[in-house]
Amino acid sequence: MTSSQFPSPSLVAHEAAQLRQAHLTKPAGSLGRLETLAIDLATWFDDPLPQARPAGALLFAADHGVSLRGVSAYPREVTRAMVCNFLNCGAAAAVLARHHRIPLTVIDVGVAGGPIEWASPGYVRSPVADASSGDLVETDSMDQATLDAALQAGKDAVQSMPPDTRVLILGEMGIGNTTVASALAASLLGGDAKDWVGRGTGVDDKVLQLKRDVVDAALARVRPESRPRELLRRLGGREIAAMAGAMIEAGRLRRVVLVDGFIVTAAALVATQLEPQLRRALMFAHRSAEAAHDRMLQALCARPLLDLELRLGEGSGALVAWSLLDMACCLHCEMATFESAAVPNRSP
Amino acid sequence: MTSSQFPSPSLVAHEAAQLRQAHLTKPAGSLGRLETLAIDLATWFDDPLPQARPAGALLFAADHGVSLRGVSAYPREVTRAMVCNFLNCGAAAAVLARHHRIPLTVIDVGVAGGPIEWASPGYVRSPVADASSGDLVETDSMDQATLDAALQAGKDAVQSMPPDTRVLILGEMGIGNTTVASALAASLLGGDAKDWVGRGTGVDDKVLQLKRDVVDAALARVRPESRPRELLRRLGGREIAAMAGAMIEAGRLRRVVLVDGFIVTAAALVATQLEPQLRRALMFAHRSAEAAHDRMLQALCARPLLDLELRLGEGSGALVAWSLLDMACCLHCEMATFESAAVPNRSP
Repeated sequence: MTSSQFPSPSLVAHEAAQLRQAHLTKPAGSLGRLETLAIDLATWFDDPLPQARPAGALLFAADHGVSLRGVSAYPREVTRAMVCNFLNCGAAAAVLARHHRIPLTVIDVGVAGGPIEWASPGYVRSPVADASSGDLVETDSMDQATLDAALQAGKDAVQSMPPDTRVLILGEMGIGNTTVASALAASLLGGDAKDWVGRGTGVDDKVLQLKRDVVDAALARVRPESRPRELLRRLGGREIAAMAGAMIEAGRLRRVVLVDGFIVTAAALVATQLEPQLRRALMFAHRSAEAAHDRMLQALCARPLLDLELRLGEGSGALVAWSLLDMACCLHCEMATFESAAVPNRSP
Repeated sequence: MTSSQFPSPSLVAHEAAQLRQAHLTKPAGSLGRLETLAIDLATWFDDPLPQARPAGALLFAADHGVSLRGVSAYPREVTRAMVCNFLNCGAAAAVLARHHRIPLTVIDVGVAGGPIEWASPGYVRSPVADASSGDLVETDSMDQATLDAALQAGKDAVQSMPPDTRVLILGEMGIGNTTVASALAASLLGGDAKDWVGRGTGVDDKVLQLKRDVVDAALARVRPESRPRELLRRLGGREIAAMAGAMIEAGRLRRVVLVDGFIVTAAALVATQLEPQLRRALMFAHRSAEAAHDRMLQALCARPLLDLELRLGEGSGALVAWSLLDMACCLHCEMATFESAAVPNRSP
């Protein structure tokens, strides 16, 4: 994809939305970030009266070669069990999606153990799921064909959403993927494992050290490579590549991508390096309790909406923050103006 | 009211809710403040499976003698016009309440110009609305009978809500009431006008200075009075007194009060001095853009849920934050446990 294909923000919609905000029955600026949120959505959607619906959640799941090195507090089988838990609506992201009446689709891009038997929609097994996943330390995460297929899986998933979708919520599941995301972020932004590796799902000191050793070894192996696509191939996971592909495609379709926590933000880092204009389509849901997330946000000049010490992933933080987009749009579109409500405006 | 009538937190429900959180399919603690929020609600409601519904919003409106001194960017008539705008569902708080399907009732405790003609429910004119309001500088805000009636108006409003109400959202409308709230907070917590007076609805430098002079004059007049009830009578407004009465009554009924911004927090300051055990029933929605709000929050040891630069009042920030309580309860009650979903828990 070349940048020339990417849409531009609509200055016309921006001005119209700004003007509308100035006429709503409240002191100018008094709804703070809910005002700028509505204006930003208007600007990107090219719609002076933006809506946060239809929204859709895509949850990309994969296992990782590196998880066999014991970098997580949980065994690898949890990825598969959690995918079933999403489909049965027992996991946090699924509960929140149901609460908001937002359809959630799990895209299996590499869950170990083969396809999950699931008759109804909401689960897609991508062809890339059968590829192998390197352990980062000795082997690359993906070969070129796998990377291409993973990026395509993300793009395909976005194209399969209803064409009037406005907001894309991305989530992920993959035991070991904070290790992968840390390695990828370090390779893209500099620094070493101690700067980027945290406790993830809650590892103890011993596993934390192992995680750091793995990331440092992976970084030593790939450096001085600096091309984002190559770094994604060598250190990224299939779900991270698929999310990067999904973000770029969603941006190209003028959708807003609501970025969740540590793993999805790592995908955003690489996606914005692949397509710098994508940044305009991204909104950031929350600051994760995973400490290095803040570094990523700073690199993306991102100011997240929430700071609730979440560190679950799955897109759960984005599903929480989506309600702010929804309320911002609701206020923007439904509030009365000083004129319509006959409320006196400021003293002359 | 004496403290002995006030309910105690339920340790049994606290432990049951904490245990449930530990079994939900997520790493322990990974839902951050959404976990503690659910546990805190369980503890106060004495219900291990708490819900944020039924919720109700009470919006107390009044005019102030001090507004005739020109301390606001808006003319006094805006209070009345905005009450009509709430009833017609054009104001921010009304739009958000409708969005959440939360009933909103406007309690008129002193809107200038007499009762508003409004046939349907949602508007109550309290007897205290016909009392006069002092200008703080030369006269007390209320006499003893007015204070009693204002506190009672808040209590009555809470008693009129459906008996199964769980969460009380408080809001206010009253041109000039950031001046009143600043004076009251300064009198309760110390400091002078420059520590407490901000731009409110957005006054210019000249009006800001006038506002500060008014507050300093009011403080000089009442000091060294330190009894909270007397300070509320002499410097508080009827809507602030009514909210204090409402908070105490709601707490007594084991309801949670979701405290909005600057004005409602000033009411919380005085209410917790009148009834120290009330603090346990209060949750704080957001940190206002009105700078001195943070001082009030610190005095209450309160950590607000949101920081979105809101400074509208009306209960709008509490109505935004209510969605977090709702999601926290939804996750707590609806997520699967490791056992029910057959997800392997942490490696031994």
